[in-house]
Amino acid sequence: MSQINVTFPDGNVKAFENGVSVQEVAASISTSLAKKAVAGKFNDKMVDVRQNLVEDGAIEIITKDSAEGLEVLWQTAAFVLSEVLAAKYPDMNFGEARVDEHGFHLDTEKPEQTQVAETEFDDLAADMQKIIKADEKIELDHVSENEALQLVGNDPYQKELVSELAVDGQVAIYRQGDFVQLAYAPVLGSTGKAKIFKLLSVAGAYWKGASSNPMLQRIYGTAFYKQKELDAELERRKEAHERDHRVIGNQLDLFFVDPKVGAGLPYWMPNGATIRRTLERYIIDKELAAGYQHVITPILANVDLYKQSGHWDHYREDMFPPMDMGDGEFLELRPMNCPSHIQVYNHHKRSYRELPLRIAELGMMHRYEKSGALTGLSRVREMTLNDGHTFVAPDQIEDEFKKILDLMIDVYNDFDIHDYRFRLSYRDPENKEKYFDDDEMWDKSQQMLKSAMDDMGLDYFEAEGEAAFYGPKLDVQTKTALGGEETLSTIQLDFLLPERFDLKYAGADGEDHRPVMIHRGVISTMERFTAYLTEMYKGAFPTWLAPHQVSVIPVKNELHLERAKELQKRLLAHHIRVDIDDRNEKMGYKIRQAQVNKIPYTLVIGDQEVADHTVTVRKYGQQETETISFDEFVTELNHDIETYSRKN
Amino acid sequence: MSQINVTFPDGNVKAFENGVSVQEVAASISTSLAKKAVAGKFNDKMVDVRQNLVEDGAIEIITKDSAEGLEVLWQTAAFVLSEVLAAKYPDMNFGEARVDEHGFHLDTEKPEQTQVAETEFDDLAADMQKIIKADEKIELDHVSENEALQLVGNDPYQKELVSELAVDGQVAIYRQGDFVQLAYAPVLGSTGKAKIFKLLSVAGAYWKGASSNPMLQRIYGTAFYKQKELDAELERRKEAHERDHRVIGNQLDLFFVDPKVGAGLPYWMPNGATIRRTLERYIIDKELAAGYQHVITPILANVDLYKQSGHWDHYREDMFPPMDMGDGEFLELRPMNCPSHIQVYNHHKRSYRELPLRIAELGMMHRYEKSGALTGLSRVREMTLNDGHTFVAPDQIEDEFKKILDLMIDVYNDFDIHDYRFRLSYRDPENKEKYFDDDEMWDKSQQMLKSAMDDMGLDYFEAEGEAAFYGPKLDVQTKTALGGEETLSTIQLDFLLPERFDLKYAGADGEDHRPVMIHRGVISTMERFTAYLTEMYKGAFPTWLAPHQVSVIPVKNELHLERAKELQKRLLAHHIRVDIDDRNEKMGYKIRQAQVNKIPYTLVIGDQEVADHTVTVRKYGQQETETISFDEFVTELNHDIETYSRKN
Repeated sequence: MSQINVTFPDGNVKAFENGVSVQEVAASISTSLAKKAVAGKFNDKMVDVRQNLVEDGAIEIITKDSAEGLEVLWQTAAFVLSEVLAAKYPDMNFGEARVDEHGFHLDTEKPEQTQVAETEFDDLAADMQKIIKADEKIELDHVSENEALQLVGNDPYQKELVSELAVDGQVAIYRQGDFVQLAYAPVLGSTGKAKIFKLLSVAGAYWKGASSNPMLQRIYGTAFYKQKELDAELERRKEAHERDHRVIGNQLDLFFVDPKVGAGLPYWMPNGATIRRTLERYIIDKELAAGYQHVITPILANVDLYKQSGHWDHYREDMFPPMDMGDGEFLELRPMNCPSHIQVYNHHKRSYRELPLRIAELGMMHRYEKSGALTGLSRVREMTLNDGHTFVAPDQIEDEFKKILDLMIDVYNDFDIHDYRFRLSYRDPENKEKYFDDDEMWDKSQQMLKSAMDDMGLDYFEAEGEAAFYGPKLDVQTKTALGGEETLSTIQLDFLLPERFDLKYAGADGEDHRPVMIHRGVISTMERFTAYLTEMYKGAFPTWLAPHQVSVIPVKNELHLERAKELQKRLLAHHIRVDIDDRNEKMGYKIRQAQVNKIPYTLVIGDQEVADHTVTVRKYGQQETETISFDEFVTELNHDIETYSRKN
Repeated sequence: MSQINVTFPDGNVKAFENGVSVQEVAASISTSLAKKAVAGKFNDKMVDVRQNLVEDGAIEIITKDSAEGLEVLWQTAAFVLSEVLAAKYPDMNFGEARVDEHGFHLDTEKPEQTQVAETEFDDLAADMQKIIKADEKIELDHVSENEALQLVGNDPYQKELVSELAVDGQVAIYRQGDFVQLAYAPVLGSTGKAKIFKLLSVAGAYWKGASSNPMLQRIYGTAFYKQKELDAELERRKEAHERDHRVIGNQLDLFFVDPKVGAGLPYWMPNGATIRRTLERYIIDKELAAGYQHVITPILANVDLYKQSGHWDHYREDMFPPMDMGDGEFLELRPMNCPSHIQVYNHHKRSYRELPLRIAELGMMHRYEKSGALTGLSRVREMTLNDGHTFVAPDQIEDEFKKILDLMIDVYNDFDIHDYRFRLSYRDPENKEKYFDDDEMWDKSQQMLKSAMDDMGLDYFEAEGEAAFYGPKLDVQTKTALGGEETLSTIQLDFLLPERFDLKYAGADGEDHRPVMIHRGVISTMERFTAYLTEMYKGAFPTWLAPHQVSVIPVKNELHLERAKELQKRLLAHHIRVDIDDRNEKMGYKIRQAQVNKIPYTLVIGDQEVADHTVTVRKYGQQETETISFDEFVTELNHDIETYSRKN
């Protein structure tokens, strides 16, 4: 029998008989490794421990204490779930069982549009536990494509999967008793180890992620090797769920997405639009005061513009398809605003006296994202960027960079954003040829950025090799409420576009010079920033941003509604967003509703308040109330708004 | 010889010999008509007076005192211009010679990218007058397509035109001596009558109007039978030119269009964007105060949405091409916002308590217009509409209609718009089947609109048969500065879309009911309204809208710049748009520049002003100045802004 050479992670190579199993390879190292092995990674592909290896390759033994080891458990729990569902619903069709970052999901289709309900989860879990307790063996088998097709019967999704999964006419399957499932990824050798699991939720998911396909029902679950890990995960999920801008967005009626009408295309409801409008006015006014000139430029341009800018060559897969307008004209939804602002720059001859020339816009852009990647407001296909481009003489880079930083820090303070870090990205000194070719420009400008940061006394970390092709940059990394890291703001030097578009300015010497372009975004897109703030504030927006700022509750409509209306009128004159809750509901209910809706101020108006011209104020999140004169209240409220104060 | 029957406008039919000329037909009526005849209209097609008629048909004799008679003169003047150019530039290529509303234009191409300059107009006109004075005969001839191709030589445009103009292998041409031109349209019998003409301007024009074709040089001119008519036309042109928003837009640097990058896609420069931003904030705040809820909805939707709304079937030629996103998803740039607002309505179950539900948006839309029809900001392909949809119970129509009218009139007053008239459009009572089928709804609602207008004491005229398919409407017609009439605002009832989208609300009776939808726009699109205001104000925007509100001029920089800067800072704190003109130019020049830029207030700061804490104020368009305290000035300025006052 022939032999194969297997390479281990430490570089050692060992010869085995052709057909050796992963389990046997593990055992050749140590008995304990063989015990802990739950799968292998052979030539970078996950394989079952029982898989026979028939060619040379690199192996890594996957144990249960690794991320991949957990995936094997998840895949096993999904297998058991499939088995239970197939028994309970003989006509059910099955999509794939897959894992994501936090668990598994199984796509199902019940006949006649009925659905698996979350209320069934307890029953399903009990059935799963029976199989798990029995610790049934799960067998790995390989059958011909034809046999596999017979095994999956009339299930259209399984049929399609058979063709996809077949390798050289062979399809791997798992069997447990009479139950058979296609082998999407390795599972454990028996059902017993999957006992610490939790079924989580159901949601719709298009077959293959394509909205033109039928919508299947996706059942989410997770599993762990230890109970305390599951408990921690459930706690994390609860916290994440409570902060999730999609959940809060729904509770506070901020926005919705209708995938049938357009995936990744959010509709901003009045509450969300109020927040966005307030953000937009805020940042525009801030930028105008900082010397920016705001423009409004078209979201469409001839595709030639993006050929000239280089986006067409380097960024096309993120762009929408061009539209054929006839006459050889192809219009493209812009993926970025830089070429538009270059159009503005180039519309006039520019002089050194005009520099730094700061062009800003709330620029709508479109980027093609796979529908599976779209998430609420944070990953969308249509977005409006707080964009700006500063055109500077090379010796103005440092000063302008500082000015932009000042603006950013000022803005962060207004929003009470403090949890961020600065990353300075340089070119890789070992691979200079990968970058725009101007040694002096790189060295000088990297030095300028660094010295600006030092001058301003700001902490930062440096990342060699993280610069863009066209220049060094500073990114501001914030933590999201869900624990991820996101770039909130960016300042990027660009030596390339000024070349490509032949940008010039007349210097004091009367000669033409080439400006440097600085791309900068302070609060990123309106979509992403709103998502970020929603999660950071947990939906309790500071007064100046809150969609509803004041809720006035008359104790008894017949006695106090008139006064409530008078106060509303006076507050409206101060441009306060104020509603009266005059529903026929109990006081306590109305007060709770105002809290649920996270309204910063609730005013209760009863006999005493009418008599004394006072209001009884309850701030969001507080139990105690305070009775003060209406004028005092207005003063406090206005102060709150003007100072962007965040009371909670 | 056979005979043909010729029908006259009065219905009389007369028999003529086959081959009779138009001139002879005219002569058969009267000698004077034969004298005045400059062309004929045979079966609705303009024909030369010398044309032989060879089939039955309806004729109208065109005399010089008609609009068409003038076109014959214009075509003749263009012919003479061609003759002069062909002699002067033997290598010149020629596109068509055509007429528009106000004169003729001739497309030309000089070899090697040289251009005919407007400075040549005097010489060209003198050469034309020579030919005109000689009153040379212009002969009509018909040649074979091959002969015609030989006559036009290597001119690629003329070659293409030969094929287009050929009828049954024959091409009509005009000859004057050796000069030959294709007969695009009738010309006069000799050059002498075209003596009262004027060459006006040159501009680029794509061959056949397609941006993928070469750009030709279009020479504009006009001509009249009487000198005083030419004088009046030149005066009208001067006035129109001075008010033209494209001209003012260029002078004040409000916007530009770059047809190479996108026809009909304006770039709003900082000055224009300031006006637009001010308009946008104004109308949103006005609408919020009037009980509207502003939303922001995506500009893209699955094409199915527009199939459901009916736009795809009835409006497709005005829509952009759909984008194939893969997976069978086709996204369409929205041509209207109504379906988006229906999405908002349908996102929740609605109750009668919520009605009237007023959804508003500054909604960006895209409409496909032929590139030839595009004009500055007034005809564009990308536009943002001040759109709103009110959902009402049928018995709320009248009240809501009045509320919308109140809002409109309020807005008109703020902008000082007074020259408008109301048009109430009903269905055609003779053709009820052309409209949405609900007799009672039509009768009631038309009556409601009329009675609302009467109640409010508003003048209006009624137009039967002008209603939309889906309901009656009110249009507000304004005169444009150039004398045209445009719809500025509209209120349209819609019974159809609520059906198509199955809109409902729960009534007080607990049952589902169908709301009526009211489409309304107050200030139309930001593009068109800005164009309208620019022309109405002749660029002298009232202070609250002016891109630059105050220009501060220090008499001597070294003595007064410091004080100027102090005042600027104080004005900026009041959110005033203020610039300092500290250029090394003469005072008089700076003051003139402030007038040219139509800046509402110019402050001059000299010794006296510094000593007395005063400012010397000059208002736009006034000669006299006034020296007042700075505080007084601020008070006046703020009052101006808050009251939307228009001082000029």
